[in-house]
Parts: sequence; C-alpha cells; structure tokens
Amino acid sequence: MKSLALFIPEIRNLLTDNNYTVLKDLLKELHPADIARGVEDLEPKEQLAVFKCLSDEEAIQVFEELDLKEQSFLLDSISRERAGKVLDEMASDDRADFFSELSDETVTRLFKLMKREEVADVVQLLKYESDTAGGLMTTDYIALRENITVEAAVEAIRKRPKVEMIHYVYVVDEPGHLVGVASLHSLILAKEGTPLFEVMYPDPIRVKVDIDQEEVARTAANYDLLAVPVIEHDNRLVGIVTVDDIIDVVEKEATEDIYRMAGTVSEDDVHKKSIFRVVGLRLPWLFTCLIGGLISGNIIRFFEITLDETIALAFFTPVILGMGGNVGIQSSTIVVRGIALGYFERVQIFWVLSREMGTGLLLGAICGTLVGLMASLLQMGGEVVALAVGISMFCSLSLATFIGTIFPLIFKRINVDPAISAGPFVTTVLDITGLIIYFTLAGFLLKTLN
Amino acid sequence: MKSLALFIPEIRNLLTDNNYTVLKDLLKELHPADIARGVEDLEPKEQLAVFKCLSDEEAIQVFEELDLKEQSFLLDSISRERAGKVLDEMASDDRADFFSELSDETVTRLFKLMKREEVADVVQLLKYESDTAGGLMTTDYIALRENITVEAAVEAIRKRPKVEMIHYVYVVDEPGHLVGVASLHSLILAKEGTPLFEVMYPDPIRVKVDIDQEEVARTAANYDLLAVPVIEHDNRLVGIVTVDDIIDVVEKEATEDIYRMAGTVSEDDVHKKSIFRVVGLRLPWLFTCLIGGLISGNIIRFFEITLDETIALAFFTPVILGMGGNVGIQSSTIVVRGIALGYFERVQIFWVLSREMGTGLLLGAICGTLVGLMASLLQMGGEVVALAVGISMFCSLSLATFIGTIFPLIFKRINVDPAISAGPFVTTVLDITGLIIYFTLAGFLLKTLN
Repeated sequence: MKSLALFIPEIRNLLTDNNYTVLKDLLKELHPADIARGVEDLEPKEQLAVFKCLSDEEAIQVFEELDLKEQSFLLDSISRERAGKVLDEMASDDRADFFSELSDETVTRLFKLMKREEVADVVQLLKYESDTAGGLMTTDYIALRENITVEAAVEAIRKRPKVEMIHYVYVVDEPGHLVGVASLHSLILAKEGTPLFEVMYPDPIRVKVDIDQEEVARTAANYDLLAVPVIEHDNRLVGIVTVDDIIDVVEKEATEDIYRMAGTVSEDDVHKKSIFRVVGLRLPWLFTCLIGGLISGNIIRFFEITLDETIALAFFTPVILGMGGNVGIQSSTIVVRGIALGYFERVQIFWVLSREMGTGLLLGAICGTLVGLMASLLQMGGEVVALAVGISMFCSLSLATFIGTIFPLIFKRINVDPAISAGPFVTTVLDITGLIIYFTLAGFLLKTLN
Repeated sequence: MKSLALFIPEIRNLLTDNNYTVLKDLLKELHPADIARGVEDLEPKEQLAVFKCLSDEEAIQVFEELDLKEQSFLLDSISRERAGKVLDEMASDDRADFFSELSDETVTRLFKLMKREEVADVVQLLKYESDTAGGLMTTDYIALRENITVEAAVEAIRKRPKVEMIHYVYVVDEPGHLVGVASLHSLILAKEGTPLFEVMYPDPIRVKVDIDQEEVARTAANYDLLAVPVIEHDNRLVGIVTVDDIIDVVEKEATEDIYRMAGTVSEDDVHKKSIFRVVGLRLPWLFTCLIGGLISGNIIRFFEITLDETIALAFFTPVILGMGGNVGIQSSTIVVRGIALGYFERVQIFWVLSREMGTGLLLGAICGTLVGLMASLLQMGGEVVALAVGISMFCSLSLATFIGTIFPLIFKRINVDPAISAGPFVTTVLDITGLIIYFTLAGFLLKTLN
C-alpha cells in the first residue's frame, strides 16, 4: 500500500515547480483514504493545491474521509460551485456527520450552495441522535416494489451508479414499509421475468431508527450482514447502516470502554488533543481517587492505636490494597465486557453474581493462605499478624469480586455506562473497604489472641 | 427478531408429540444464526432432532455457527452421508477453524467422509497460523482472467451460486497473480462486450498471507473493503478475508486487550468456563501483584525508623499508591489503544513520550499541590509531612506517566503484547517505586527540616 505521507517531499517539489500534470498522475495512483490521511500533514496552501488536482469523484471521496478542520477549510477555499458539488454528492451519512458539527450560521451558508432535495436529506438525518441507528444510517440505498421483474430491478440499479451499498436492494410496499431484501447476486442468478417477491428474502432483519449504535453493530455481526435496514416505528424504511460504519462503531465503542475503564473520559483522537485538554479529561477520576485515598488515610488514623501497637500491620497495607483492587478490576472488566458483547441478555444476574462470588472465595482462599504463610515465613510480624493478614486477604478478595460484579450490573440498570465502574471507582471503593476489614480484624485478633 | 431461545418450550412440545411438520415450518421462520444460538440450550437428543428437521442448506449454515462441542456431537450422530455433505459444503474458513481444534485421529476419520478436493482445501488452510490473514481467509472466491468479457464474468458468477462473498470478482493472470478486482456492480453497469480489464480496479489493496489479523482488520477498515484479497509472497492470490470475519477480529482483539489490561489471561467465552478454569486464568497476575505487594511491605519495613518517627506518614500511603497506579494505568491504556489502532505507526516515540511526560508534570503539579494543601488543612501530620506528601505526589505522578508510557512501547518493540503492561504490571511497579520515593523523600525532609 502506498501512503501519501511517503510522497509528501515529492508533492512539495511538484507544487514548487507548478508541475500539476505529474502531481495529478501521482494522485491517481493513490487510494482516496490514503490521500485523506496524507492531506492532514500538509500545509493549508498545499492541501488546497492537492485538492484542486483531484477529479470531482476523487475529491468527494477524499473529502468524506477528512477531519472537520480540513473539511471546513477546503469548503471555504474552493469555488462555490465545486463546494456545492462536493456537498451534494458526498455520502449522506458522512455529510450529516459533517453538518452536525457546524454552527447554525455555517449550516445556513452551506445549504445555499446545495440542491434543495439534498438539503432536505441533511435536515432529515440531523433529527436523529448521532449514536443511534438514525445517526449512523445513509439514505443512499435502492428501494423497489415487490412486483417488478428482476431485469427491471437490475435496470434500476444501473440508473443509480453512485449508490455506495449496491449489494442489496430493499423491497417496500406502497406506503414504504419494508417487506423484503434481495441481493444483487440473487437478481443475477434468477431467471428472466421472475418477479422480485420470488427472489427476495422476506421479513428481513432490521433495526428501529432510535436504537443504540452498539445494538446495530451487534445485529450486523450476529447475522453477518453487509448492511442493516433502518425503519421508523411504523416499519417504513428510512435508511441503511453499512458495514464499514459498523466496523467503526465496534472499534469506537471498544476504545470508549477501554478509556472509561482506565478512568479517562473518552474522546476521539485523544492523541491529537493538546496536553491541557488531555489533563482535563484525566483529572476528574483522579480527584475521586484522591478523595478516596485521603479517606483511606483517615481510616488508618482512626485505627491508629492498633497501628501503633504493631507497626508490622502497616507492612501489609500495600499487598491488601493492591490485591483487592486488582481482583475487583478483573471482575468488573469481565462483567463490563460481557455486557458490551450482549452476553448477559440471556443470563440471570443471580447466576453471574454467584459465579463471581465462587471465584472470589476460591481466589481468596488461595491468596489468603499464601500471603499468611509468607508473612509467617518472612517474619514480617508475629503469628497473629500473619493470621490477620491471611484472613483479611480472604475476606477482601471475596468482597472484591462481589463489588466488582455488582457495580457494573447496578450501573447498567440505572443507565450509567458500566465501563465507568471498572476502573478507579472500584479500586477506590475497595481500598476503603479493604482497609476497614484489615484493621478491624487485626485489632480484634490482636486483642483476643495476644 | 425471533430467537430460538424463545421457542424452546414450543419445540420441546413438538418433539414430544413427534410433530415434525410443524417443527419444520417453525424452523423455516428463523434465521440460521438464531437457530444455532438456540440449539446450544437444548439437550443433545433434542439438538439432533432439530438438526434433522433442517434442509441441507439450513443445516450447513447452522453448523457453521455452532461451537466445537455441538459440532462434534452432531457430526458423530447424523448419517455418514449427511456429515460428508455438511463438511464438503460449509464455508472453507469456518471448516478450517473446526478442523484445527480436532485430534489427528478425528481429522483422519472425517476426511474419509469428504471429497478429495475439499480435503486438500482443509489441509492447505491448516498450514497457516490461526491469527494471520491465512488463518482467517476463505478459499471460496471467484478469480477470472482479465481478457474475458463482463457477460462471461457474470456467467461465471451464475455457475458458483454458493460462493459467499460474491460482490467482488478477482482478476488474475496466467500464473495466478492478482492484477485487479471488479465489483459485481461494475460488471452490471458496463456495456456488453467490455473486457474485464477495462472495468476492473487495477493493483488493488491486498495483504500477505502471514500478516497479523489485526493488520488485516485495519486494512479493511481503512479502505472500507467488503473483502481483502490475500496473496502469497509471490503475489499469487490464495484467498480472501470477508468483512464478517473482520468484525469478529476487531471485537476479539478489543476483548483480548481489555482482559489483558485487567490482568486476566484472555480466553474466548470466559463466561462459559468452569470457575476453576477462570481462577486459573486470573491467578498468574495476582501472584505477581502479591509478590509486588510484599516487596512494597518490606520497603516500609526498611524505612521503619522513619515510619516510627512519624506514624502520620502511613496515613498517606494509600493516596500515594492509588494515585500513582491510576495515572500509570491511564497512560499505558492510552498508549496501548493507540498501538492497537495503528496510531503510533506514523508518530515518533520521542514525541509520544514527551507528550505524556508533559501531561504527568501537569497532573503531578495539580494533584501534588492539592494533596499537600489538604494534608495541611486536615492536620493529618505536621507541615513537613504535608510538604513531603505534596512533593512525593508530584514526583510519583510524573514517574507514573513515564513508566506507563515506556513499558507498552518497550513491550511492543520486543514483540510482547503491550496490553499486558497496562494492568497489574504497571500498578505493581509503580507501587514499589512510589513507596521508595515517598519514604526516601519524607525521611530526608524530616531529618533536614525538623
């Protein structure tokens, strides 16, 4: 694969020499997605010169892949006529995404460059939330009536050469309700004169327009679809979500979950943001952690008498806190990912909890025995301290799997993203509860057994 | 959408009544993917009865979606003839995955039921590692020569009704080298008599057979491809990877990274494994964490004199450890995800490090000041302790971003999965370094300033 990035020195030379013929040939060799990625590394003046060297079709494809900043700059810099053409002909889903980020003023200005029906399309798509099926869908699809022949259907496809997802045609009735889907392949395989309803797959898989994008992605993945038809609540077909957008959704949702689990508010392209913005995204959970840490500290202060009695207890706070946090994170991560992949839709919550509890008791028994033995062998404290450490470890790991499991499930129930629970939140809660268990138990044992 | 799970009571009744006619009608209404998911909840005897009610075509589609356990059971229970048919006609990539999990003995036995050319196909595909392009690809694709006409190409497609990814035909030269790709759509749009080389897209995006599956997924995502052609090192076309498998890869790689970050060895369907297996997967990193925690404890013991001098220092260990761990996890998560999404291929490592270091200094300055002030306000120790806590926090957060960033990059360089570093590994390292900084600094300040 060739990337424009590799050609940047060459492109700069060609631009300096005004050698646009060679530049055009060079650009023709490259994939629009590569040109788009390369364009972002060029100076504005160079971006404009490159964009001017592209054919209309290429220019539209490159434009679709660019970031908002470059898109806005180019639209303002090219001729009004070309800007109108690009906006009229770009993919309707990418176009709606672009418009959703602009100010009302800019939207009004750009609408003036466009055909009336394309403006109506943008207005229609902007009604839907960006993370729903409606926000993801394109209106570039082919819908036909069920009683036409397969040749007529193929002819209809021929007339719409620019439709992106041409591999399916959708079959609708008079009021536009979705009744079937037929692949281009099945149209070609059918005998001449066959009516569409005979080759179509009736009652196809579909999603409602206000459904969450994660569920759209899961539907496409489960049924191996190249495109998912989107309907209004009355079953009228209003758009389709294509598989390339599904991949983006799967990737974005995973990134979002991963960032949330690490306690940084997720944002696209965090690598490109300024350091101050990144600090702003990372600070909120750190403050929670800070407060939690100070509370933990005060718990130690509250138990100061115990600690003073045997300083050895302090040796084991890092291992108790560290292990509890890690076990809790493991549990909540497994539950959060299970929720994201739709696993828990078919499973009883009680069953999940009791499984994790069983795991916790087992992990607690193994690690508790181990740490108790080691404490005793390393002579980091007396036998009573070793006993207290072992039992505390057992209790705090059992509690950790419980807390790590129950919080994502509760968060899910109250419609908060469960991924948030699988990070600093769980570790902070477990730090506090772990310390309380440890010092209470140790205090009790030291008083009773010594 | 209908799921077989909802119909299970009905199906059981129909089986008891031997009412296979109604059962067959019911199954026809359902999507093969749904039947497959439902079958897993049935008893073996019922699974077999349902499978017998499916048409050959449906049976094959359902079989492809089942887990190994059900697949093996059904193959052993249905007639040898039908088993042979299912194996001969199922998708070549799913078939290779199935065979890769069987014992040599079973493979030999099943091969006897199959056509010779299909056996050869399995043997060929089993040569490739499962997480490479070769392990992911199917050999069900259409390859044509460049000088045939578009009608002949369409005719060739008609003759292969079972090929799954029919939306592209691949153009190869005499020795089988990939020279182009044409969409079914472009074949239909072209005038009669047009030779294939005029409508094909020459020199298409492709991947080598031994490339990692993550890179295959990234290629498909970047270029919005429905299928990625796979070549041997001499450019001979040997298979294609279809987009439904790409979605699975994106999802699996994200799950794997997420589990690794949480310090549990990743395994498919962790939710279905026995508790003992899950404990086994989770214990290894916990042991590391255990050792790390005990080392941390010994560090406190080493500094015991200091601790004894001012017990107040112990109050702040939780906040120092917790904050360092969280900041480190944030940094390594951002870096790990950046690596997974291919972001760092275009960026200098030095640049990444200096960005994260800048972030760390800023986070450290803010949180260090804050915790110092709070320590002083809450009167959890004297002014010197507050100063020591603030400065230690600043140092340990700055170090945390450095360590959190450098480890994934080093791991990547030495070909270890960087995701491993973004979990218990980083927190354990930071616990130890954080405590050393804190106690050394506090000891020094207490000695000097008091």
